[in-house]
Amino acid sequence: MIAETKDEMRDKILDAALKRFSNYTASKTTMNEIADDLHCSKASLYYYFSDKKSLHFAVLEKIGEYFISEQEMEAEKDLPAASILMNLLEIKRQFVLRYYRLEMFKILNDNSAETIRAMTIMKERELAMMARIMKKGVAAGDFKIDNISEIAALYSQAMEGLRFSVSDCLNPKLEIDPEEVEKIIDRQRLLTEIFVKGIKQ
Amino acid sequence: MIAETKDEMRDKILDAALKRFSNYTASKTTMNEIADDLHCSKASLYYYFSDKKSLHFAVLEKIGEYFISEQEMEAEKDLPAASILMNLLEIKRQFVLRYYRLEMFKILNDNSAETIRAMTIMKERELAMMARIMKKGVAAGDFKIDNISEIAALYSQAMEGLRFSVSDCLNPKLEIDPEEVEKIIDRQRLLTEIFVKGIKQ
Repeated sequence: MIAETKDEMRDKILDAALKRFSNYTASKTTMNEIADDLHCSKASLYYYFSDKKSLHFAVLEKIGEYFISEQEMEAEKDLPAASILMNLLEIKRQFVLRYYRLEMFKILNDNSAETIRAMTIMKERELAMMARIMKKGVAAGDFKIDNISEIAALYSQAMEGLRFSVSDCLNPKLEIDPEEVEKIIDRQRLLTEIFVKGIKQ
Repeated sequence: MIAETKDEMRDKILDAALKRFSNYTASKTTMNEIADDLHCSKASLYYYFSDKKSLHFAVLEKIGEYFISEQEMEAEKDLPAASILMNLLEIKRQFVLRYYRLEMFKILNDNSAETIRAMTIMKERELAMMARIMKKGVAAGDFKIDNISEIAALYSQAMEGLRFSVSDCLNPKLEIDPEEVEKIIDRQRLLTEIFVKGIKQ
């Protein structure tokens, strides 16, 4: 295959890996298969990614960026803040169900400096976005909140609680179960309804 | 020292260990010190507890029982459900600040069958208690809830989220920081206020 620039080639590899990983899981995909998909040599892959783990990490970084950007775009829409919060849950649901085969936690549980840095940046963007949504709700006269960023963080953490419970910490699952995801999103919807009513003007 | 029965002696050991552990931490306490406090031989301690770890676990079990019983008693009081929820947070605050030196997570993170069983039982009692409180709120006409046990579990999990966030899972702390506890309880109070308003009749 012919790619004009180095960045372009890197992107093509990421796309091919994402496709394989999300259809067949990362662990069941070989570097050979990705090279075959791209009609290139395995050596070319290793020019861009030192091993499958670093390719896996780069794929997660790419879709993480896509995921947060999609949410940020939703947050900017001219809609009531409460509707935006509900729409974000739907985006999350669709995203997780589409990509649950990516075996994210296999990589993200490694506690490496790189992972922690990436997760911290994602978290900060999410919190800033939540604060913008809460601010919009206040500006529209929908929400009555004293400290916007505190309430935004509180909402985010409460949502996380529905995913990361004590039992998850005691016994972290490496795989995401699609049925479990639907249940979590349902609970997050219910808590969002209660929360929104609780901060209503 | 003289103790009438085996159970009585076991209890005296637990009390002495709890006193030492909560003043000086479990890791800085030796079996010798506990034996000295009780004016008994170290061999007598080992008759009841095979090692310091099993003594530590038994101490946590004992105060865990005390903690959940205290909450259950509060839950039975003739008070509005919303006040009970707030009072439970105050019980939690006092409990954690009193016993944070017990190094609970050193034991509770071991993922043993014994720990998981004990935590599961505690969790079930907490959920049953929360359901009774929600039911009381509904009976008094304070809360408007369709599915009581679902909302009770939702509230519990949301509260946990303020403690167990993604970053805790990525980087679990073995020690409890009293200042951090105050912050968590403050956030839990705020979320409780919002939640209670959100399920109001």
